[in-house]
Amino acid sequence: MENFNFYSPTEFVFGKGRAAEAGLLVKKYGGSKVLIHYGGGSAVKSGLVGTVKKSLDDAGVKYCELGGVKPNPRDTLVYKGIDLCRAEGVDFILAVGGGSVIDSSKAIAIGVPYDGDFWDMYSGKRVEKALPVATVLTIAAAGSEGSGDSVITKEDGMLKRGAGSDLLRPRFSIMDPSLTQTLPAYQTACGATDIMAHVFERYFTNTKEVEITDRLCEAVLMTMVKETPRVIADPNNYEARANIMWAGTVAHTNLCGVGREQDWNSHGLEHELSGLYDVAHGAGLAVIMPAWMEYVHGHNVMRFCQMAARVFGCQMNFEDPEATALEGIRRFRTFLRSIGMPINFDELGAKEEDIPALVEKFGIGDGKTGGFVKLNKNDITEIYRIAAHASL
Amino acid sequence: MENFNFYSPTEFVFGKGRAAEAGLLVKKYGGSKVLIHYGGGSAVKSGLVGTVKKSLDDAGVKYCELGGVKPNPRDTLVYKGIDLCRAEGVDFILAVGGGSVIDSSKAIAIGVPYDGDFWDMYSGKRVEKALPVATVLTIAAAGSEGSGDSVITKEDGMLKRGAGSDLLRPRFSIMDPSLTQTLPAYQTACGATDIMAHVFERYFTNTKEVEITDRLCEAVLMTMVKETPRVIADPNNYEARANIMWAGTVAHTNLCGVGREQDWNSHGLEHELSGLYDVAHGAGLAVIMPAWMEYVHGHNVMRFCQMAARVFGCQMNFEDPEATALEGIRRFRTFLRSIGMPINFDELGAKEEDIPALVEKFGIGDGKTGGFVKLNKNDITEIYRIAAHASL
Repeated sequence: MENFNFYSPTEFVFGKGRAAEAGLLVKKYGGSKVLIHYGGGSAVKSGLVGTVKKSLDDAGVKYCELGGVKPNPRDTLVYKGIDLCRAEGVDFILAVGGGSVIDSSKAIAIGVPYDGDFWDMYSGKRVEKALPVATVLTIAAAGSEGSGDSVITKEDGMLKRGAGSDLLRPRFSIMDPSLTQTLPAYQTACGATDIMAHVFERYFTNTKEVEITDRLCEAVLMTMVKETPRVIADPNNYEARANIMWAGTVAHTNLCGVGREQDWNSHGLEHELSGLYDVAHGAGLAVIMPAWMEYVHGHNVMRFCQMAARVFGCQMNFEDPEATALEGIRRFRTFLRSIGMPINFDELGAKEEDIPALVEKFGIGDGKTGGFVKLNKNDITEIYRIAAHASL
Repeated sequence: MENFNFYSPTEFVFGKGRAAEAGLLVKKYGGSKVLIHYGGGSAVKSGLVGTVKKSLDDAGVKYCELGGVKPNPRDTLVYKGIDLCRAEGVDFILAVGGGSVIDSSKAIAIGVPYDGDFWDMYSGKRVEKALPVATVLTIAAAGSEGSGDSVITKEDGMLKRGAGSDLLRPRFSIMDPSLTQTLPAYQTACGATDIMAHVFERYFTNTKEVEITDRLCEAVLMTMVKETPRVIADPNNYEARANIMWAGTVAHTNLCGVGREQDWNSHGLEHELSGLYDVAHGAGLAVIMPAWMEYVHGHNVMRFCQMAARVFGCQMNFEDPEATALEGIRRFRTFLRSIGMPINFDELGAKEEDIPALVEKFGIGDGKTGGFVKLNKNDITEIYRIAAHASL
């Protein structure tokens, strides 16, 4: 096991009807003037933003609001949010929505106290200061409600880049699983895929002897394998929704990644897909992640056998371990298809002829990148090709 | 799943050689004058207290010190610590040791800013204020390095009682597994038992549909079943030590307990044993916990089958589920014996004729207590009797 720091100071306020506590929580964490940041209007139409406003009113906390966050949230709205916060004297950002809204909120939180362009911090500069952020989560997916990460897309060139800092970890996150019951099945499945990918990116590692982290990873993955089909079959299954929602947070506080080298190439490869085609992140991951697994499985066949046996319940083939490894990947892809996810370029709406452009945008030149297996331009091209043609 | 709050703001600083960071961490979390609190001298002899002092010196942080914490830490030393802190103007308590030292530190942290007797908060009064506490952990066991709990023994009558508050959660906890390599096998095994008991107290619940928490519980338990025999066989196995140490923290931040009713009767029953005989908490739990399981297993046979199958790898007996349930408990007790733990009163040094006194001190009168199964005086007597006579 490698040395590590683990820090997850967010107060998670989980369960039915908790959004009404937003006002008191903002006050507890020192906010006096809040920006309520949200997406395309469903947070308003559902009454959720109204509940939050009433709760802020009751607690005597002032607020202004900014809607319009899109999936793959854009820098353009972030600039607008920064200006608004400065004009209104906002000292606390409250994200009401999913990962995109939270990521946009974190970017605004970085930008308000920063003299230059907030994009600097999405180009590698260290985050030194940020307004406090909190969330009222409406979809189980990104894990952004418990993480210090944010991903923003620069509209000019559709460049998708991330920033990370403990300063971006939400002060509190209100998580009411019943708010996710109105989500379309496709979005629910995209979220579930993202959650599983967050674990797999940490699961495939060259670091030996991190049994506790392995087992915690497998705990989240097994939960997702059990609960996701239940919410696809019955969107109103509160219990299954609740298990998925909490699993999504555990998947991304880094509890599933401590003490070990991680990979994250699949996320990188996917970012180019959703950057170019504006597809859902989870859908892109469903296409990329099993393709990446197929390409790299020979690097450590036993690790993939462990996934196959422990997560997907495969019988170990002791005469032919590689068969077990591949069976595990096949089960993962079958699972993704069963919950309605695309598994190849065609189903995603991507084009094989764009692969050179995707590889170019990935931007590693003649270098290599990744943790579990270091990949160069040719490797990446090959993974995109596997993804393009994948079938069951 | 029930509504819950989860809050674990401690910064965990994990791995070899991390104690040298103590000074900078105290400074980061606002301490200017520290009480270094420790136990029986091994923390001094090993050089650990010296490392911590040097690190505080280097960071320009002042300190005073108080050693002498015993297992089942006493109120008498807490009073001494409170006086010392007031006299010296201490604003930060740094526990260098195991659960007992940390619990004593938390009690001092409560007492310093409190006008009355700190024991009030161990008699049910709410903790309103406390000095910040941090830890340099030397044994994997109590989970106190990540919890808001503290247990203190009142010397007058050997009364063991607890206090809990988020204010008691350590600001940071330095966890260097190599510090635990010098521990005697018996203490290591007591710690491992305590860790497993912290999970079991949360695992046996009447709340349905908390799959994610179940799986996280099982992750910790399976890790303990794998790693504990390895450190008993080879005390210098750093990797196994590291897995156990982190599992011990995960076991007690309440990540393994959220969303569900918990039990904690085994801990209550054990507290009377270690209160009366001054035996190690883990050893008492090794005697009590399987006895409790045997007594209550009929309440939900399938839950015990789940433990047997998922944690101890038992084959499910579909014709006779109860046989599987009992086999799981038997495997747990066999495991405890294999790591050198006592499994009955004789081996613990307890006496069957004291059972009425133990029951009396447990203090529920004609009432009932517990989560999974509510127990009255007769039930408790019966569990102590099973514990008295247990064998493999």
